Amino acid sequence: MKTTLTIITLFMSVLIGAQQSEYKQDSIQLRTIYTASLTNGNSYQWLDQLTNRVGARLAGSEGDKKAVAWAKTELEKIGLDSVWLQPVTVPHWVRGEKETAHIETNYGKFPVAICALGGSIATPDEGILAEVIEVQSVKEVEALGDKVKGKIVFYNRPMPADKIETMQAYGATVGQRYNGARVAGKYGAVAAIVRSMNLKLDNYPHTGVMSYGDTPENQKIPTAAISTNGAELLSKLLKDEKFKVKLYFKQNCQNLPDAQSFNVIGEIKGSVYPDEIIVVGGHLDAWDLGDGAHDDGAGIVQSMEVVRLFRKLKIQPKRTLRVVLFANEENGSRGGKTYAAAVKTNGENLIVALESDAGG
Amino acid sequence: MKTTLTIITLFMSVLIGAQQSEYKQDSIQLRTIYTASLTNGNSYQWLDQLTNRVGARLAGSEGDKKAVAWAKTELEKIGLDSVWLQPVTVPHWVRGEKETAHIETNYGKFPVAICALGGSIATPDEGILAEVIEVQSVKEVEALGDKVKGKIVFYNRPMPADKIETMQAYGATVGQRYNGARVAGKYGAVAAIVRSMNLKLDNYPHTGVMSYGDTPENQKIPTAAISTNGAELLSKLLKDEKFKVKLYFKQNCQNLPDAQSFNVIGEIKGSVYPDEIIVVGGHLDAWDLGDGAHDDGAGIVQSMEVVRLFRKLKIQPKRTLRVVLFANEENGSRGGKTYAAAVKTNGENLIVALESDAGG
Repeated sequence: MKTTLTIITLFMSVLIGAQQSEYKQDSIQLRTIYTASLTNGNSYQWLDQLTNRVGARLAGSEGDKKAVAWAKTELEKIGLDSVWLQPVTVPHWVRGEKETAHIETNYGKFPVAICALGGSIATPDEGILAEVIEVQSVKEVEALGDKVKGKIVFYNRPMPADKIETMQAYGATVGQRYNGARVAGKYGAVAAIVRSMNLKLDNYPHTGVMSYGDTPENQKIPTAAISTNGAELLSKLLKDEKFKVKLYFKQNCQNLPDAQSFNVIGEIKGSVYPDEIIVVGGHLDAWDLGDGAHDDGAGIVQSMEVVRLFRKLKIQPKRTLRVVLFANEENGSRGGKTYAAAVKTNGENLIVALESDAGG
Repeated sequence: MKTTLTIITLFMSVLIGAQQSEYKQDSIQLRTIYTASLTNGNSYQWLDQLTNRVGARLAGSEGDKKAVAWAKTELEKIGLDSVWLQPVTVPHWVRGEKETAHIETNYGKFPVAICALGGSIATPDEGILAEVIEVQSVKEVEALGDKVKGKIVFYNRPMPADKIETMQAYGATVGQRYNGARVAGKYGAVAAIVRSMNLKLDNYPHTGVMSYGDTPENQKIPTAAISTNGAELLSKLLKDEKFKVKLYFKQNCQNLPDAQSFNVIGEIKGSVYPDEIIVVGGHLDAWDLGDGAHDDGAGIVQSMEVVRLFRKLKIQPKRTLRVVLFANEENGSRGGKTYAAAVKTNGENLIVALESDAGG
C-alpha cells in the first residue's frame, strides 16, 4: 500500500504552489500525510469490504452494481464537495457453467483445465472435438492460412521469464490471447486455445479479454485459456508421434445485451484554481474468477485514500482533486472512454491524471 | 527474490576490473546473469527444501544440524573450489512444552497468548501469578526502582506505525524486549512480559532474543512476549479500577549446555587476486516457532544462488568469491563472531562483505 504515499507525493507537488518559500511548509504537510496514511489508513478495511463483501464484479454483473453502490457510499462518507455517478454502457458477458476440457488420444483421455476468455462465444452444447495445430503467434497462423481449417489453433508462446519488469512479459504474449480467435477464425479454425498468462506451471488458467474485432458473426469461434500444465502436456503429446491427439472442450459463456454501469466520481474543489483538475483513480470492475484484490482493488482503495486523507487532515488543495473509480476496464475500457469523452465535451482542464493499476 | 540480482550487480562491479574498455563486456555478462537468475534460478527449490524439509533450526537443535548438512551438500553439488565447515560453539536454548497464560481478575480469567523469549529461564513448575505494573521503557523501570518488587513488569511500548522504513519501528522497541528482564530483575520484579514485536493486533506472540547481561543467577527472572491482542486487553484491564488484575503464566524453557554448530562456507578462488575476498552470506539458523523462510531462508538461498550462477555460467571471478552461511545469528551471533575472529587470526583481506537478512 506504499503506493499511496507515492501518489500523494506526486500530487502534493502539483497541488501546492511551487514557490521556494512554501517548500518547507510542503515538506511538513507531506510528513503529516505520510504519518496519517501509516497510522490511520483505511485502505485495508476498504479492501476487505470490496473483495470479501462485494467480491467479483465484472461489468454488468450483480457484483458490478454492488461495487458502484459501495464506492459511492464510501466516498459520500468522506464528506467530499461532491460525489456523483457517470453512466457508462458496458458489455455484459457471463461465463455460465464451469468449462470442461480433455485431451483425447489413442492412449486415453487426459483432463486439462481451461477457462473461457472474456468476450468469447460458447462452444456448441455438445462441445468441440477437433485436431490441434500448435503455433507460437498470430503471424504463424497467417502463414499457415487454410491449413488451420477445421482445427483448433493452440497458441502456446510462453511469457518470457527473463524480464525484470514483469509487465513486459505480459506484453510480449497478450497479443495472441487478444487476437488469436479473430485471426484463426478468419482461416476457418473451429476454436482457439491460448496458453494461460502465467509464468508458473499450474492448473489454474487465467481469464482475460479477447476481441473478435470486426469478424462477421458466422466466423466467430470460441476461445479459451488452457492452464500452463495443460499447455505443456498438450504440446508434449502433439510432438510425440505415437499419440493421435484431439482436444475436447465445452464452455457456456454468453454475450448478453449491453448493461448499465457507472464511473464513480468524487472531488474536492480547488480553492484557487477550481477549474484545473487533478485526477487519481483505479478501476472498480474485476474478473469473475477472483475477488480483484490486486487488479484493481488496491488501486481503488489507494485512490480513495488520497481524497480521504486530504479531508481528514483538512488540507485544502488549490486545484480540484478528483477521484475517478472507472467502470469496465477489463473487457472494454468503456469507463475510461466515457470519462475521456466527457472531459472533451465539457472542455475540462485536466492537468494531471494518474491511474493506479499495477497491483497492491 | 530480485534482491539476488541486486547482490550480483553489486558484486560484479567489484569482481570485474574497473577499466573503461571492459564496461561493455561487463554489461553483457550482467545481462547473462540476470537472465540465468530469472529463467534458471534455483532459489525457490532451495527455499522449499530449507523451510519444508529442514524447517525450524534454532542453534543447537536437530534442525540446526540438518540445515548445516543440507547446506554443505548443496554447496558441494554446485562444484565450488572448496566447501568447508567452520566450527561454532552455540547456545542451546529449548522452549519445551507450550506456554500458557491468563489474566486473573475479580471478574474471572481471560486467556492470553504468550511465548517465552529466547534465552529466558522457565517459570517455577506451578507458574507465576503476580500483580502487574505496566511501563513504556526500561528507563521507566529504573525510575520506579523498588516499586516493581514482587511484580510482573509489563513492557507495553508499541512499535511506532508511522515509520516508512519498517525496520526503524522494530529498532524503536526491541530494546525493551532485549533488556527488559535484566533491568526489571535488578529491582526485584518476579517476571517481565513484553508486547510482541508486531504492528498488527493478533493472537500470535513473536519470539526473539533477550539477554540477562551479567545478572547473577539468583536475580534472573523469566520473560515472555505477550500477543498484541493480549497486551491491549491487559493494558485496558489495568486501567479500569473495577478490575483487580493479576497475570498468570507458565513456561518451560531451558538453557542447556552450549552445543556444536558450524558456519557453512564455500568459495570460488579468484583467478588474479585470490587473497582478496568478497563475502556474501545469510544466517542458517531460524527461530523454533516458524520455518524461517524470510528470516533468513531468503538470504541463504540468495547467497547460495550468487556462487551457483557464477559456476553455472562459468564466470571466473578475479577475486575470491565466498559464500558464508552463518550459524546462530538469532540468539547469540556466535557464527558472525567466530567468522570475524578467524578473519583476524588468519589476516585475511576481506574487501567486501554483504549479509542478506531483510526478508525475501
